[in-house]
Amino acid sequence: MDYQQIIEEVYQEVQEENLRGKVADYIPELARVNPDQFGIALVDLKGNVFGVGDYQVPFSIQSISKVHTLTMVFHVFNSKLFSRVNVEPSGNPFNSIAQLEFEKGVPRNPFINAGALVITDALCSKFEKPIEQISDFINEISGKNCVSINDSVKKSEQNHGERNTALAYFLKSYKNFNNNIDEVLDVYFSQCAIEMNCVDLAKSFSYLANDGFSIFANREILSESHARRVNALMLTCGFYDEAGEFAFRVGLPGKSGVGGGVAAVMPHKFSIAVWSPELNEKGNSVKAIKALELLTDKLSFSLF
Amino acid sequence: MDYQQIIEEVYQEVQEENLRGKVADYIPELARVNPDQFGIALVDLKGNVFGVGDYQVPFSIQSISKVHTLTMVFHVFNSKLFSRVNVEPSGNPFNSIAQLEFEKGVPRNPFINAGALVITDALCSKFEKPIEQISDFINEISGKNCVSINDSVKKSEQNHGERNTALAYFLKSYKNFNNNIDEVLDVYFSQCAIEMNCVDLAKSFSYLANDGFSIFANREILSESHARRVNALMLTCGFYDEAGEFAFRVGLPGKSGVGGGVAAVMPHKFSIAVWSPELNEKGNSVKAIKALELLTDKLSFSLF
Amino acid sequence: MDYQQIIEEVYQEVQEENLRGKVADYIPELARVNPDQFGIALVDLKGNVFGVGDYQVPFSIQSISKVHTLTMVFHVFNSKLFSRVNVEPSGNPFNSIAQLEFEKGVPRNPFINAGALVITDALCSKFEKPIEQISDFINEISGKNCVSINDSVKKSEQNHGERNTALAYFLKSYKNFNNNIDEVLDVYFSQCAIEMNCVDLAKSFSYLANDGFSIFANREILSESHARRVNALMLTCGFYDEAGEFAFRVGLPGKSGVGGGVAAVMPHKFSIAVWSPELNEKGNSVKAIKALELLTDKLSFSLF
Amino acid sequence: MDYQQIIEEVYQEVQEENLRGKVADYIPELARVNPDQFGIALVDLKGNVFGVGDYQVPFSIQSISKVHTLTMVFHVFNSKLFSRVNVEPSGNPFNSIAQLEFEKGVPRNPFINAGALVITDALCSKFEKPIEQISDFINEISGKNCVSINDSVKKSEQNHGERNTALAYFLKSYKNFNNNIDEVLDVYFSQCAIEMNCVDLAKSFSYLANDGFSIFANREILSESHARRVNALMLTCGFYDEAGEFAFRVGLPGKSGVGGGVAAVMPHKFSIAVWSPELNEKGNSVKAIKALELLTDKLSFSLF
Repeated sequence: MDYQQIIEEVYQEVQEENLRGKVADYIPELARVNPDQFGIALVDLKGNVFGVGDYQVPFSIQSISKVHTLTMVFHVFNSKLFSRVNVEPSGNPFNSIAQLEFEKGVPRNPFINAGALVITDALCSKFEKPIEQISDFINEISGKNCVSINDSVKKSEQNHGERNTALAYFLKSYKNFNNNIDEVLDVYFSQCAIEMNCVDLAKSFSYLANDGFSIFANREILSESHARRVNALMLTCGFYDEAGEFAFRVGLPGKSGVGGGVAAVMPHKFSIAVWSPELNEKGNSVKAIKALELLTDKLSFSLF
Repeated sequence: MDYQQIIEEVYQEVQEENLRGKVADYIPELARVNPDQFGIALVDLKGNVFGVGDYQVPFSIQSISKVHTLTMVFHVFNSKLFSRVNVEPSGNPFNSIAQLEFEKGVPRNPFINAGALVITDALCSKFEKPIEQISDFINEISGKNCVSINDSVKKSEQNHGERNTALAYFLKSYKNFNNNIDEVLDVYFSQCAIEMNCVDLAKSFSYLANDGFSIFANREILSESHARRVNALMLTCGFYDEAGEFAFRVGLPGKSGVGGGVAAVMPHKFSIAVWSPELNEKGNSVKAIKALELLTDKLSFSLF
Repeated sequence: MDYQQIIEEVYQEVQEENLRGKVADYIPELARVNPDQFGIALVDLKGNVFGVGDYQVPFSIQSISKVHTLTMVFHVFNSKLFSRVNVEPSGNPFNSIAQLEFEKGVPRNPFINAGALVITDALCSKFEKPIEQISDFINEISGKNCVSINDSVKKSEQNHGERNTALAYFLKSYKNFNNNIDEVLDVYFSQCAIEMNCVDLAKSFSYLANDGFSIFANREILSESHARRVNALMLTCGFYDEAGEFAFRVGLPGKSGVGGGVAAVMPHKFSIAVWSPELNEKGNSVKAIKALELLTDKLSFSLF
Repeated sequence: MDYQQIIEEVYQEVQEENLRGKVADYIPELARVNPDQFGIALVDLKGNVFGVGDYQVPFSIQSISKVHTLTMVFHVFNSKLFSRVNVEPSGNPFNSIAQLEFEKGVPRNPFINAGALVITDALCSKFEKPIEQISDFINEISGKNCVSINDSVKKSEQNHGERNTALAYFLKSYKNFNNNIDEVLDVYFSQCAIEMNCVDLAKSFSYLANDGFSIFANREILSESHARRVNALMLTCGFYDEAGEFAFRVGLPGKSGVGGGVAAVMPHKFSIAVWSPELNEKGNSVKAIKALELLTDKLSFSLF
């Protein structure tokens, strides 16, 4: 399988379709990015890297970091945290507070904002210096010191963070939040402000394509069974209110972010990161999703 | 892989756990069934059959028939029907009318009742004698005249069918229903009243494990790409409000019915049907779900 | 108090404001009405009639008839029916089915469509010929044979009645509907198709301004306490999702219909009917509401 | 009319019914109150006071203070604030955040918590020392230095204030909150912790029975038209999700608090305060509501 040739074809075909969306603009730092950027990096299970376009340009990974933090506390999640977050698709926008009320303070899944806040809260219970631990962890599994936190993005998120703050207080009113709210939010906004390029991001997802073992960290990150469960969660909940559509058209477990990135895996084959800033109405990158759809068609790979 | 030995182990272990639930009792015909029955049938891609317990006892397949009817009109669904039904998980009980109102008459997916009614309506537009066509189709893909419609179940469903009738009128108020309501409901209640045993049901799902080709019908039922999409839909939407949980713990595409049956597939390996009447709170068979969880653990098979 | 002069001033001032809305167009019969018509009739407790504009032109009273039917079964409502319908404002559009689901088949109040269907169902339990009984009752309390049922409006309502039919089946699924659905709907669509002019409509509300005694029928229609309760219901629930606004700005108990009519009462003073076909976004006549606001300002009458 | 005799009869009859509810227990300070206390004070328009039972025992007025703060900014509310808060009944519990999301950050009315926070926010924009201003205002209109703020109640509210804090951040995310959140919440928790007895509370509502003029402050507190609008708001929204029921059974404008108090007015006749700590499921005092129902029956007074 010549991955390099295939992703170049995909890149070309997507570019020709001239798809347009809307760059996230809730903070000025994201709105300012060049909307025409588009990159793809694919990493196979031997560590070979294939790239095209702007695949070496760092971008804001935003919600994709929720997969990393979930992994860091998954062993807790699987036992104690299990009662604090569900694993069901949401059927509502990522930041809905109504659903949280209907379900009495237990978020639908760890990838909507309320659920990710519970995960970060659990992470703050476990680690003394959670922000450093997150960076160290991602650096380790991507095999390189690649993580930087964009301070102006972080500050801007904080300044527009009223809704996430409301979610945190709401969780606390249901006793589903254990640490100081400001401290947890500081970690949360930091993880959202992480910048990486497509290559490093694809590497950091490699263990999920490899039954939990990272060839870059050279250790088991998750047990085989836990790695599968993270993949199942990404497939059913990784794309906000468009998870079904993505499973239907692409059929790979993945996670998107409002920075325009998508990271996904084909189990036992490869991990991949695609990035382009313009988003569709559901908040997912229009070019990234199209690229992944074309790729799975060409490869005849699919979970199903 | 000795499938016979494995399903016997699974059967034994589930029986020892002595799991209890509640037989569906909204109609007397379902409530009357012996709750202790439990059967498993697995069919590999060569057509070999493995069975244990009550795997040859016919039972009411109920909502599992929605996979068959969806398949019969999938080519329409994929183009014209696409605007009439979404492919997103529901996050609500299977018969919720509230969600249908919020989403202006377009059901979330083809497996909740409102979506299945749209599918049956489309089927009634296509075929002159839809009930016979459904029976003929299932008989063909299971390689045998195995389908019978239980008339007293059907009549009982009709007598308790106010909520489905309300859904049909509601769909019609949004102009998302084309045929006579009573006629479509007659087909719908007939398909829910189909009885088959585990072997025939597993055979009837075989094409979904085989890229769309049925070895029993000896023809392509769906294109490879469409078969994958049906599998993706089953994975994200096949278990009512418990689809995420099932993907998380089992990781196979499947569909359950309130009769206590579950049909599922492991792509490129096998199809399987498990049946036991007692249901959990979400309406899925407690023993069937446990059996599938143990099976995928033992086989180390999973999509992910 | 010179009522004639005051309503003429009100009429003049409203006309000068040139308020515009949108005639109800869900059925062609309502859409076809001349939108510029506007009439006011006020009836004091001695039976004196004051009128201006198109106050003698019959129009479709639509939902205003829900006050008449409620009155006809209020004694039942107050005891047995009490458990079948609540008396709380809705906070949702008049034909919402979602709320009915959240509240398990018990409508919020007798003036939203679901609640009115329960009332008409109760009326069908009580009377052999319910349509005739409704006409007879309204004729009696307005002191004249004034009621006619517009057959083409009724048929048109029936042909566009899918949503009300869905509500009826939904109520039945919760066992909150006792009679044959088609028969009750026939009565319901008949009562909505009643035509009367402003004078007769105002007369038919006179008992609610008079502690339950109708000077036109010359008998007690409701006890004093029941009459007050109907008034309280009109004040809190009589204007769909705009009841609070109407209480806030006008402060009179009243009921509106999509035909553009509003009937209201000032207890111990008068009853009034105002009609103009153009509606605001909430489905209430723009001119009628403005007229009542000006009237209560001028009269310095208000409940509060 | 011998008010003293009537309220004594009412008191007696309510006591004989031995109604039970549940004292508010979300903070220990409220839970600790003697549940058997029960007092009534009625103040006529000449300032005569009639009292029975524990009518001179101070209690926590809680949400009843929302009427006072609304009055203090009503002139703003009526113009600019109008776009920030609606005047519709809620149909949901008093602290629901879901409805706030559905309606994009504009609370349904000024008496649900979200709406009251907007009012207190507006009050903080207007006054330098808002807590003192609130106390001064209530002292003025009750004709006596009667207001004290219970510090331990206030601190306890603050310590259990996560849900109100969430509402404030949520409002801010919709740009419907102008001041520092902690400062506004401090004022809000202070006003909830105000303690007064029935006599002073009834006096402080006297202007609403008197077309806006307070005989205790000897000045117009609200214009006649504004006073009516506050009364209309109390009638439609003053009793959480039980406003319709209260209007239906009692028919007076009023406001309740979780401390067990209810203040109400009969326009042009009297104001009244009733207090008893045990609440029904909707959060309203069981004895106070029963007392007001009996009272209006005996007096044959009603708005309607």
